[in-house]
Amino acid sequence: MPGYPTSLGTSDAATITVLGQDLGADLMGKVGFGELAFWLVANRRPTPGELRVFEAVLVALAEHGFTTSAIAARLTLTGAPESVQGAMAAGLLSGGSRFLGVTEDCGRFLSVTLAEHTQSGAAIPTTGEAWDDLAREAVRAQRAAGRFVPGLGHAVHKHVDPRTPVLIAIATEEGVLGPHLRLFEAIGRVHPEVLGRTLPLNGAGVCGAALSDLGFAPEILRGFALLSRAAGLVGHIAEEMRRPVGQAIGNEVNGATDYLAPGDDARS
Amino acid sequence: MPGYPTSLGTSDAATITVLGQDLGADLMGKVGFGELAFWLVANRRPTPGELRVFEAVLVALAEHGFTTSAIAARLTLTGAPESVQGAMAAGLLSGGSRFLGVTEDCGRFLSVTLAEHTQSGAAIPTTGEAWDDLAREAVRAQRAAGRFVPGLGHAVHKHVDPRTPVLIAIATEEGVLGPHLRLFEAIGRVHPEVLGRTLPLNGAGVCGAALSDLGFAPEILRGFALLSRAAGLVGHIAEEMRRPVGQAIGNEVNGATDYLAPGDDARS
Amino acid sequence: MPGYPTSLGTSDAATITVLGQDLGADLMGKVGFGELAFWLVANRRPTPGELRVFEAVLVALAEHGFTTSAIAARLTLTGAPESVQGAMAAGLLSGGSRFLGVTEDCGRFLSVTLAEHTQSGAAIPTTGEAWDDLAREAVRAQRAAGRFVPGLGHAVHKHVDPRTPVLIAIATEEGVLGPHLRLFEAIGRVHPEVLGRTLPLNGAGVCGAALSDLGFAPEILRGFALLSRAAGLVGHIAEEMRRPVGQAIGNEVNGATDYLAPGDDARS
Amino acid sequence: MPGYPTSLGTSDAATITVLGQDLGADLMGKVGFGELAFWLVANRRPTPGELRVFEAVLVALAEHGFTTSAIAARLTLTGAPESVQGAMAAGLLSGGSRFLGVTEDCGRFLSVTLAEHTQSGAAIPTTGEAWDDLAREAVRAQRAAGRFVPGLGHAVHKHVDPRTPVLIAIATEEGVLGPHLRLFEAIGRVHPEVLGRTLPLNGAGVCGAALSDLGFAPEILRGFALLSRAAGLVGHIAEEMRRPVGQAIGNEVNGATDYLAPGDDARS
Repeated sequence: MPGYPTSLGTSDAATITVLGQDLGADLMGKVGFGELAFWLVANRRPTPGELRVFEAVLVALAEHGFTTSAIAARLTLTGAPESVQGAMAAGLLSGGSRFLGVTEDCGRFLSVTLAEHTQSGAAIPTTGEAWDDLAREAVRAQRAAGRFVPGLGHAVHKHVDPRTPVLIAIATEEGVLGPHLRLFEAIGRVHPEVLGRTLPLNGAGVCGAALSDLGFAPEILRGFALLSRAAGLVGHIAEEMRRPVGQAIGNEVNGATDYLAPGDDARS
Repeated sequence: MPGYPTSLGTSDAATITVLGQDLGADLMGKVGFGELAFWLVANRRPTPGELRVFEAVLVALAEHGFTTSAIAARLTLTGAPESVQGAMAAGLLSGGSRFLGVTEDCGRFLSVTLAEHTQSGAAIPTTGEAWDDLAREAVRAQRAAGRFVPGLGHAVHKHVDPRTPVLIAIATEEGVLGPHLRLFEAIGRVHPEVLGRTLPLNGAGVCGAALSDLGFAPEILRGFALLSRAAGLVGHIAEEMRRPVGQAIGNEVNGATDYLAPGDDARS
Repeated sequence: MPGYPTSLGTSDAATITVLGQDLGADLMGKVGFGELAFWLVANRRPTPGELRVFEAVLVALAEHGFTTSAIAARLTLTGAPESVQGAMAAGLLSGGSRFLGVTEDCGRFLSVTLAEHTQSGAAIPTTGEAWDDLAREAVRAQRAAGRFVPGLGHAVHKHVDPRTPVLIAIATEEGVLGPHLRLFEAIGRVHPEVLGRTLPLNGAGVCGAALSDLGFAPEILRGFALLSRAAGLVGHIAEEMRRPVGQAIGNEVNGATDYLAPGDDARS
Repeated sequence: MPGYPTSLGTSDAATITVLGQDLGADLMGKVGFGELAFWLVANRRPTPGELRVFEAVLVALAEHGFTTSAIAARLTLTGAPESVQGAMAAGLLSGGSRFLGVTEDCGRFLSVTLAEHTQSGAAIPTTGEAWDDLAREAVRAQRAAGRFVPGLGHAVHKHVDPRTPVLIAIATEEGVLGPHLRLFEAIGRVHPEVLGRTLPLNGAGVCGAALSDLGFAPEILRGFALLSRAAGLVGHIAEEMRRPVGQAIGNEVNGATDYLAPGDDARS
């Protein structure tokens, strides 16, 4: 029988193995939770500098108040208070292309831009000017194609997303500022001259750039955004248990129903 | 308008506030992800000793190989590879009374036992003998009611669950071994004389005891177990992307279908 | 190899078998969707009278406007518009003990009351008076235990839930009014004299009674309530695609945030 | 206050309105469940012929044995038996681009092909030959672009998917065979000469074509596939309650673990 391969976990009567380590002897009390999450996906332990950036990303994305995700989780707990897992699942299901997609989209955009650049035989830039040239070209290409630049602009933080400079500073301090973050920074510098207006580099985007610099492929970035939100959702679920608002939200929305007869075209 | 109260997060054009802190200035790079998760639920920052126990719990529960949860997540990714959030939600939905319930059940059993003991006017035990007496009484009461003792016994780890002694040792080292863990330990010592056989204290149970000692109420313990599994699920999703097994599992199960005509009572 | 038994569906290169029937030749175009749903659970085809009651139940429970379930589905589609399955799943996850639980609770309460009555050696009532006696006893027992009578009372329909008399009339017309509906009707007659006030028999409860009369066990009743809601949720998802309100709801709730510093006890 | 518009449902103390109808007086007992589902999305009542095709689609897609969706639902019920909604949600979450996507992909492919044809000024074909020409062109264009033709081919039904001719026959009988089904049939006739091999028109695809002929837009087709599966999932959940296999499946998969040390490249 071929069997189902995995490098994650296995156990027998006496031992539990996770990532090739003895869970009790080698991991519990010796490895932090963020560190384990990195290791579970990367299949290698992060350096201390990588870990600090990684945990800063998880902290940056965890909680943002009454998002659609948090509201959905609270409404779900209202209907099914016995099912904490259902409330958490409902909250995570909001995390798709629009709500948590920027992290992934930005990581993918930067990765593809870099890959196309090097595949064309060009070298990775080594000066700020060369990064600016590459960024200018990338922003122009998006504009020409009628597409937004992922990671640029934010509905609330119109001028500066406070997470962006902090994450770049941490990566710099730790010596892990890589090509994705450098390209993202350069986009921040050059986009006004291409687009004719100045937009902030948003926090979800900078997290995608940082995770890409840590070696993660675009398709798994959303997984980290979801893990991070899971912590925020436990917070919302706990708060909803202590001081519920889900029913009140439901009542307010329902009370604001504007009922239209089907086919009432004038108003639809 | 009354508004919807929260102490978790809020933001305006220039700032993001989480738990009353400035997210960029006070949290990112300064607080670990596990630490933030504790704080989001407890509404207070953990001490370093509490944090080490808390992260050991999250590490202990994260990953256990091809559980029903991990398989469900992988099958879901097979059908909907574009929806990482759907795969993660499906994996978490397994986390109910049977699969992740022990952590919560054990925390509740210990909390209720302690509450009833002190509400009867008795003092919290201060000696091993007194803990043993309380444990003996609690195990006897469960047995008399025909109920299992939550946290006792494990399907795979028949003799010792390797997580249990490690977590107790960490809590002891950090000086945060509290009444729930002490009572759980005492149950481990005295249950053979009541039940007539020796069962291991399981790892999910000891995590419930430790979280209860950290001050968390039983109803939120499952939330932490789910957060922990979320990290394991990101690992499974990433591995499924690299080296898929979901379709093969589906095919094998489907290929082993034993089709019974409805009403074929002899075999049902 | 033992294999995994099922009586539901199987297929090979040339045929698809569902419930022992040839899907193409015997079911498509010959059996309605509601009929198939009944058959999939009951393992037998309903009579026309049973089917009319069953479909009336599915119609009764499908749609009720901006419930917590519908709002959660719409918010989820807002965040993940590419994942219709995620929006539907999020909407269904509200269907727990509080939101769709009444159907199940009422079915269980009536089933248990009838089972205890007959197990005590008593005959099933044959007169209205005898039903009233049994109902009186059941309502008294609930009251004495400090428990609500499931299916009695409704947050909005204070006097009459319009679904209740209609479903009882349909079951009567079709000759399938059974002991659960009769007992439920009797509860409607006698509860004022026990409880001192008059409450309506609610529509979710009458559906539970009707499904119980059709032979379904209490533990699967929620499954039918969820199936019914799934139709309503497809309606909400389609409407949200045409005329979105999810983002507006999210913005309104978020805009009404009343941010409290953690530990601000005076207001919590 | 602007309010949230909907044409679906609303209620007050005395009435429940669904789709502009009085739920009790006009819908219950008078409209079938499949009929209501059509109406909730289309905002109009189907004709009897349309309804027969629509219900045949819902019957065709409901149940197909141990699919990844059904297995995920059963595994989830194993871990959380108290949460029927969680098991159903987990089963539906498999319904993405690969598992239920063909219905939507096929509907979209046919719709787009027809739209481009008529937008170019050409008339809708009126003869079999003209349909064949359009189909030939469409299949060639897909082939030239290196893309599959949605709805062509099936993993199990290598020669004929038994659902396809039945659904076409029903639509023909009912006089609602429209351009999408005609184009799909023509693809079945002409693709061998373009692709050099003969593939079956699959059942999920023909359902997409039929739903498109009924006037539904591609983006909502998956919603009907999910509704249909919801009935199959209630069947699986009920069967799992009676005769569980989820734990056995979990044990078999886990027992077949082939544990690889992380970084064991030779085998990964």
